[in-house]
Amino acid sequence: CLIQECTASLPSTHELPKMEQKWIVDMLEYNVKGGKMNRGLMVVESGKVIMKSRGQEPTDDDLKKLAVLGWCIEWLQAWLLVADDFMDSSETRRGQVCWYKKEGVDEIAINDAFLLEMLVFRVLKRHFWAEPYYMDLVDLFMETTFQTECGQLLDLQCKNLGLADFTYKRWELIVKYKTAFYSFYLPVALGMTVAGIKNQAAYDAAREPLLLMGVYFQAQDDYLDAFAPPETLGKIGTDIQDKKCGWLFVQAYHELCSPEQKAYLDEHYGKCKVQTEEEKKIKEIYRDIGLEEKYTNYEAQSYKDIMAFQGRVEEVGLPWEIIDIFLKKVYKRSK
Amino acid sequence: CLIQECTASLPSTHELPKMEQKWIVDMLEYNVKGGKMNRGLMVVESGKVIMKSRGQEPTDDDLKKLAVLGWCIEWLQAWLLVADDFMDSSETRRGQVCWYKKEGVDEIAINDAFLLEMLVFRVLKRHFWAEPYYMDLVDLFMETTFQTECGQLLDLQCKNLGLADFTYKRWELIVKYKTAFYSFYLPVALGMTVAGIKNQAAYDAAREPLLLMGVYFQAQDDYLDAFAPPETLGKIGTDIQDKKCGWLFVQAYHELCSPEQKAYLDEHYGKCKVQTEEEKKIKEIYRDIGLEEKYTNYEAQSYKDIMAFQGRVEEVGLPWEIIDIFLKKVYKRSK
Ligand SMILES: [Mg+2]
Ligand SMILES: [Mg+2]
Ligand SMILES: [Mg+2]
Ligand SMILES: [Mg+2]
Ligand SMILES: [Mg+2]
Ligand SMILES: [Mg+2]
Repeated sequence: CLIQECTASLPSTHELPKMEQKWIVDMLEYNVKGGKMNRGLMVVESGKVIMKSRGQEPTDDDLKKLAVLGWCIEWLQAWLLVADDFMDSSETRRGQVCWYKKEGVDEIAINDAFLLEMLVFRVLKRHFWAEPYYMDLVDLFMETTFQTECGQLLDLQCKNLGLADFTYKRWELIVKYKTAFYSFYLPVALGMTVAGIKNQAAYDAAREPLLLMGVYFQAQDDYLDAFAPPETLGKIGTDIQDKKCGWLFVQAYHELCSPEQKAYLDEHYGKCKVQTEEEKKIKEIYRDIGLEEKYTNYEAQSYKDIMAFQGRVEEVGLPWEIIDIFLKKVYKRSK
Repeated sequence: CLIQECTASLPSTHELPKMEQKWIVDMLEYNVKGGKMNRGLMVVESGKVIMKSRGQEPTDDDLKKLAVLGWCIEWLQAWLLVADDFMDSSETRRGQVCWYKKEGVDEIAINDAFLLEMLVFRVLKRHFWAEPYYMDLVDLFMETTFQTECGQLLDLQCKNLGLADFTYKRWELIVKYKTAFYSFYLPVALGMTVAGIKNQAAYDAAREPLLLMGVYFQAQDDYLDAFAPPETLGKIGTDIQDKKCGWLFVQAYHELCSPEQKAYLDEHYGKCKVQTEEEKKIKEIYRDIGLEEKYTNYEAQSYKDIMAFQGRVEEVGLPWEIIDIFLKKVYKRSK
């Protein structure tokens, strides 16, 4: 597999001792596997759909290329998560302890994240060097990486801000940059690239509904963090404890709360541990002010907003299916 | 300047709020400036020397290109140091507190390092997109980044190793990868690229003596850490306290110490604070076993080893001066 392929030669090309080679292999195995692979599979799916819509039957070589790019997104996500968990002092990820929390790792995780980032570009080089679109792939991964880092900066700066700065507009900006570009636009853009699409207007047309979907996806994530049963969610939501600039909070604080409720948030949001009375009270406020209903309306509106792009997407010659298959997967998910 | 140029458009291209834009500008100013700029100047120097040796008088445009690439190495170095200081829990750098130690920064420094890394590639894209060697530049920066990260892995793994594993061979591997490629080979390779050299053999011929110089440079650094007066060095050396796999230690432990002296190192190396009796005693051992003389011999031998490459470098049509000017700067420096 890809892990084997891109580490096997390191002892000869980079004089890497066996111990360090094993470290990299273990680090890759630990962090790349165990996810839902949604992003990776989206590359393959959208590439297939686009090629078929243009009358091209995907060859084995096309499918292999799409699969490699799918893994590249999974690896990109892996280093983003390794670094994110370190910066957020998180405990667990995908049902196992975070990489940096493992015995003997700690701050080495930071260098591992940087290594993994460069390994993605090495995989691109190995598999796509001779393709006419190689430079486009490199550029797309770099731009997406930069966008995601801008989103992380916006997210991390919340630490230096007061609750009054947690506006809906800021929330939307954070999630668009830290999640939507790499999770929704990138997979489809990669599929389009392999399918040979060069028209910039086609990328622009696909981007808009995909970013809306990414923003909606994060609103769901924030909603589920507070209201989904931990058994369904697979973890205990900690957004209130962590003073997250989340969808529920920005609505509550700036739109729906009474002065008393707002004062309670000022007093306890980000300062109470998970499952304490104060945290439960905040969720109660969220219920009392009608956030569940507001979320249901938001969900319906998002769906409509995305569907409204069908015309523009088809106009540039793309099949609406590339948006629709992911919308079907994301809309009304429960975990 | 370059900082202005690559941050000015972020509010419009990436919807970045003023506060986050200012954060990035401040982060760049803090971390990019204040160094000796050796690496950046090496790009300009070697580019000029090579062009002149080929009868090309460098134009203003050539000089500007070389200067931009010089800044790119300085920026690369900046993020390497931001991440390194975080991983090493360092206190100061270039006479000021480390970036991550500043109020309100902390773990945001990790994302800043990743951002700075991508900003280097954005600068390359902006200035070199249309050049026939643009892809070579991107590839060179990526390969060098990866080599440096391999070196950092080797260095960081020392934490999980015993003193017996700190061999001369391991020391040499660490410093070659974590320092020599980006500090010595990269500047000259960039100068060669702008000068239009395409012959792979020329790059190979330049690389060997430059890597030797890089390894020698680090041996100096390790030697000065223990033996240079703090007034000259500009800081207090902490390699003994930090259990560094340094040139002095690997020689002492594996080659020169008596069993008693070795036992003393086992007992105290990496376990004593700076300027304690134990730390002074270790430096005394270093003196007693004749490390100062051994270093002087090593220095002379390194010089000879590098000079021995003159023929091969000139054979591929490169002026020996590109090696010689840096050798003159590095050889027998005192800080
Ligand atoms: Mg996190
Ligand atoms: Mg985070
Ligand atoms: Mg969440
Ligand atoms: Mg350090
Ligand atoms: Mg270090
Ligand atoms: Mg040193």
